[in-house]
Amino acid sequence: MIQILKNVPFTSVQIKDSFWSPRLETFRMTTLPACLTQCETTGRIQNFDRAAGQDPTPFEGLFFNDSDVYKVIEGAAYSLMNHPDPELERKIDAVIDRIAAAQEEDGYLMTYFTVAAPDKKWTDMEKHEMYCGGHLIEAAVAYKQATGKDKLLQVACRLADHYDSLFGPSKRHWVEGHEEIELALVKLYYATGEERYWKLAHWLLEERGHGHGRGMIWDKEDWGPSYCQDDVPVRDIHKVTGHAVRAMYLYSGMADVEVVSGGAGYEGALRRVWDNVVHRNMYVTGGIGSSRSNEGFTGDYDLPNDTAYCETCAAIGMVLWNHRMNLLYGDAKYADVLERSMYNGVLAGLSLSGDKFFYVNPLSSDGSHHRVPWFDCSCCPTNIARFLPSIGNYVYAVSDNEVYVNLYLGNTGSIHLGNGLILRLQQTTQYPWNGRVEFAVQPEQEAEFGIRLRVPGWCGSVQVNVNGEAPEQIRIEQGYIRLWRRWAPGDRIVLEMDMPVERVYSHPLVMMNEGKTALQRGPLVYCLEQTDQEVPLNAVQVPSDVRFAIRHDSGLLGGITVIEGYDGAGQRRLTAVPYYAWDNREAGPMTVWIPEEQPKSLRVYTGQIVGRS
Amino acid sequence: MIQILKNVPFTSVQIKDSFWSPRLETFRMTTLPACLTQCETTGRIQNFDRAAGQDPTPFEGLFFNDSDVYKVIEGAAYSLMNHPDPELERKIDAVIDRIAAAQEEDGYLMTYFTVAAPDKKWTDMEKHEMYCGGHLIEAAVAYKQATGKDKLLQVACRLADHYDSLFGPSKRHWVEGHEEIELALVKLYYATGEERYWKLAHWLLEERGHGHGRGMIWDKEDWGPSYCQDDVPVRDIHKVTGHAVRAMYLYSGMADVEVVSGGAGYEGALRRVWDNVVHRNMYVTGGIGSSRSNEGFTGDYDLPNDTAYCETCAAIGMVLWNHRMNLLYGDAKYADVLERSMYNGVLAGLSLSGDKFFYVNPLSSDGSHHRVPWFDCSCCPTNIARFLPSIGNYVYAVSDNEVYVNLYLGNTGSIHLGNGLILRLQQTTQYPWNGRVEFAVQPEQEAEFGIRLRVPGWCGSVQVNVNGEAPEQIRIEQGYIRLWRRWAPGDRIVLEMDMPVERVYSHPLVMMNEGKTALQRGPLVYCLEQTDQEVPLNAVQVPSDVRFAIRHDSGLLGGITVIEGYDGAGQRRLTAVPYYAWDNREAGPMTVWIPEEQPKSLRVYTGQIVGRS
Repeated sequence: MIQILKNVPFTSVQIKDSFWSPRLETFRMTTLPACLTQCETTGRIQNFDRAAGQDPTPFEGLFFNDSDVYKVIEGAAYSLMNHPDPELERKIDAVIDRIAAAQEEDGYLMTYFTVAAPDKKWTDMEKHEMYCGGHLIEAAVAYKQATGKDKLLQVACRLADHYDSLFGPSKRHWVEGHEEIELALVKLYYATGEERYWKLAHWLLEERGHGHGRGMIWDKEDWGPSYCQDDVPVRDIHKVTGHAVRAMYLYSGMADVEVVSGGAGYEGALRRVWDNVVHRNMYVTGGIGSSRSNEGFTGDYDLPNDTAYCETCAAIGMVLWNHRMNLLYGDAKYADVLERSMYNGVLAGLSLSGDKFFYVNPLSSDGSHHRVPWFDCSCCPTNIARFLPSIGNYVYAVSDNEVYVNLYLGNTGSIHLGNGLILRLQQTTQYPWNGRVEFAVQPEQEAEFGIRLRVPGWCGSVQVNVNGEAPEQIRIEQGYIRLWRRWAPGDRIVLEMDMPVERVYSHPLVMMNEGKTALQRGPLVYCLEQTDQEVPLNAVQVPSDVRFAIRHDSGLLGGITVIEGYDGAGQRRLTAVPYYAWDNREAGPMTVWIPEEQPKSLRVYTGQIVGRS
Repeated sequence: MIQILKNVPFTSVQIKDSFWSPRLETFRMTTLPACLTQCETTGRIQNFDRAAGQDPTPFEGLFFNDSDVYKVIEGAAYSLMNHPDPELERKIDAVIDRIAAAQEEDGYLMTYFTVAAPDKKWTDMEKHEMYCGGHLIEAAVAYKQATGKDKLLQVACRLADHYDSLFGPSKRHWVEGHEEIELALVKLYYATGEERYWKLAHWLLEERGHGHGRGMIWDKEDWGPSYCQDDVPVRDIHKVTGHAVRAMYLYSGMADVEVVSGGAGYEGALRRVWDNVVHRNMYVTGGIGSSRSNEGFTGDYDLPNDTAYCETCAAIGMVLWNHRMNLLYGDAKYADVLERSMYNGVLAGLSLSGDKFFYVNPLSSDGSHHRVPWFDCSCCPTNIARFLPSIGNYVYAVSDNEVYVNLYLGNTGSIHLGNGLILRLQQTTQYPWNGRVEFAVQPEQEAEFGIRLRVPGWCGSVQVNVNGEAPEQIRIEQGYIRLWRRWAPGDRIVLEMDMPVERVYSHPLVMMNEGKTALQRGPLVYCLEQTDQEVPLNAVQVPSDVRFAIRHDSGLLGGITVIEGYDGAGQRRLTAVPYYAWDNREAGPMTVWIPEEQPKSLRVYTGQIVGRS
């Protein structure tokens, strides 16, 4: 199908925002250097020297550790695009030299096999060979964009060509156990113009669900083909299965191939499985994958809180997939989920200090779950390393004659509409602490075009003004307020989204949450930490006659808006902080879902009023 | 019992407010002169000349029409207090001369009996003799306060003395059919210091419910003693009965006597009946009295919309009573009801032009119900005439060392705390269109005291700052945020009340509203008028996936914020305007309660979310 929208790349979005800028600064100063250092000290980079024959010591770590190095390079590239840093660039150049040296003559590149098991290449679909290759490709494309240097891109093309020589129609079958290569090959096509790359991606998708993996992977796994989405042909997918990150990368790749191919027949599957994920298998935090055993999905509505797996990578995968769905359909509901995952499921993955990470993001804790500096399997830290510097990607999208605003944060976007019109759009806001956003519209010259402002799913009522006047009639289409008019330089829009504290409730089939509520304000899901409460956490209830007071505390947890709940007698009964900020103080129990006190009598306010929706 | 709070009179509250000031201007320019003219042209004032023997024509109009003249004088007095107007004062002086001339030798004053039935005095408790006397007293006290002139007050005292000579312990029994005299006599006590006035009020209250009315009123009425609250002794009242305005005036008088007597044993009854009225017999508009037949109450939860009586006077009575309850207990819940009635049930009673009135305020209409310039029984217009100029009464209250802010509107209050401290409090706000209120605090000198800001019942979450800082800890007591500190001149408070569009629902026993919702934003209840809809009103539903956009239209209906409801496809499906503003354009159907479209599937947003509270 035809993609409705085009992305506005983050390189066109200059972020200057009271919420995000300090985080991006911490990322550059702390997170990225820490990840790079970890890759060095854990032997991840050294493995390339070993594969290049320049280091005789044995392969170190997990077999797919190359991918972490690639992801850090990708993150560094994104960082360099908006923040040039010659020393960082020099460091990355040196790592790239070591990677290039490890590539075999025929283009093969994966240090584990080259060093430790050269005779086992392509014998096990669960060994992440193409998964690593995919991350190499993403890093290479990013680094070329950032620096103009194509050494890594050449490595990536030789590797992709190698894949293409081995696999494809009337060549060998292959079902890559961990998806990632598919979306990467489409990226490589866009970077090089070589159509065979996206065609290989298409072929790899079509390989799934026909038993081609039998004998190579599934027989030795407890969980069978559904674990890596090889149970049905991708166009027949009805429900999400298996490993959560794999599923997200698969759907992202399917969306990419659907677009680049001009129609691969994946639309129905994508829409069906989106409904299934979002309505039955997603946590309120935008996290997914409830089970530790398969790092993924179990059954619909099985969403335990204390044992929630919710891998940070899977939440990032939700952002990647929902971003593509938003571009495909131009529907704000996908950006709603993107925002939910981003501000909660993803952001919780990183400590406020920027140097500690969650792999697993439960919705309640007895106080024993904490962020750590690194993992043996460090996919999550390195995924954050490439995600954070590219958040500008998700702010805008365009059609021929309209700009879509998907995220609200302080930034200046340089936006090229499909029809050639260029405009600058500047946002000023204290989001997510406040629902007011001011836009300065600066088209090159006066012109008629549309500006669509997302009305977030959490937002029940909204007000918009253009140059101080309310539009005669507001149009809300696919979740966006559509402002279509002749815009002149200097025009101003003020968007005011009502952002009260909301109590959200589970589907009744989520048994663990019966009688419980979660607090949300704007895009942020809140939680209770023991340290803020006056009684043991398991004794805290939302009073039946609760009133919420909010209080912005610029000194607490990097500056947060705290929610306090009072009962009718004026007693403070709970204090909630944003979920993303938990476990940054003394250790203690935490919960997102809070029991609601049963009202002594119906909470009847007037004969005609029992409650508010 | 001891009253917790003291009132800050409206003479200490200078209103300068974008919502109220234009209304008060219209009141002075249009409403008050119109009422005065109507009293003249309908013979209401002329009846006094007839009673004085200066006009031989027969008594004209309804027997209790004197009360309208008194109420207009009371309103004129309130108006003069903040807006001196020598011409108006001269006119009122002339009317007062005509009233005084009608008083009989022994102090008796009611033109109907003097002119038309001199031998029937005190033979029918349903003839409003003391009801009229009560309004005379209120007018007299007000006019003395406004002008210092005591001619009318002397008339009132002579009349009260006359009552006192006829009725009381070991004198005649009397159950005044329409309460009003009780609260008036307490006012007269405060104005004169004569204790026998409040003692007579107390005695009159105690007369009720013992059968003393038998043979004089109840036998000839269909509805029996409960119609005028003579079915049980007042201290034994458990539920609201009968005529709504009478009930409100009774409870107001009971509250007054409870305070002035230092404890009359009415507390239990007041609290019980408040619960009964507010939770089972009040409309969402703050209107009460569902039945036209008795202008009053029927059974709990019997709250039909199209035939709702909701007399304007009864809504005013709710303000009067709830104001007293708030002072008694210092609890914001009473101010919540006061505000609901004031902004909806009362305000709807007057056209935007200021010269047409509703007596009856239904919650739906087929398009045939309209405001008119006057009524044969014009209690409502004249009640509005005394209510509007005194709204400043309801803004503040004080204790020894705290000021309570009950209403939010632009004003400067000159406030004397019980401990002698004097402060000015200035509010700046666009309420009710916006939940932000700025306060400038100006104590005479730096001093420690409390400021309590009401968190309205409609407000689920609220934020407050003092001098730009959030207080370390917020205290909410009895519905007020309590700010206790050392205040210095120039201190500033910013209160931000989240004011989203809310859907409110009826108690399930209100059968007419099953499957329906009403829209409320801030204190304002909204309604649909046909003229704003794109389909016939009876086809309008709230879409299951509704999003609300709000739009302030300064040119519409005197400047209102419009609510528009859109469905997921971006279709505008409804447009709502404040209930108070209805029937100010072309005639057409109207409804407050709107059917909700049944969702095609459960409105599941995520596995963990089905809806918002």
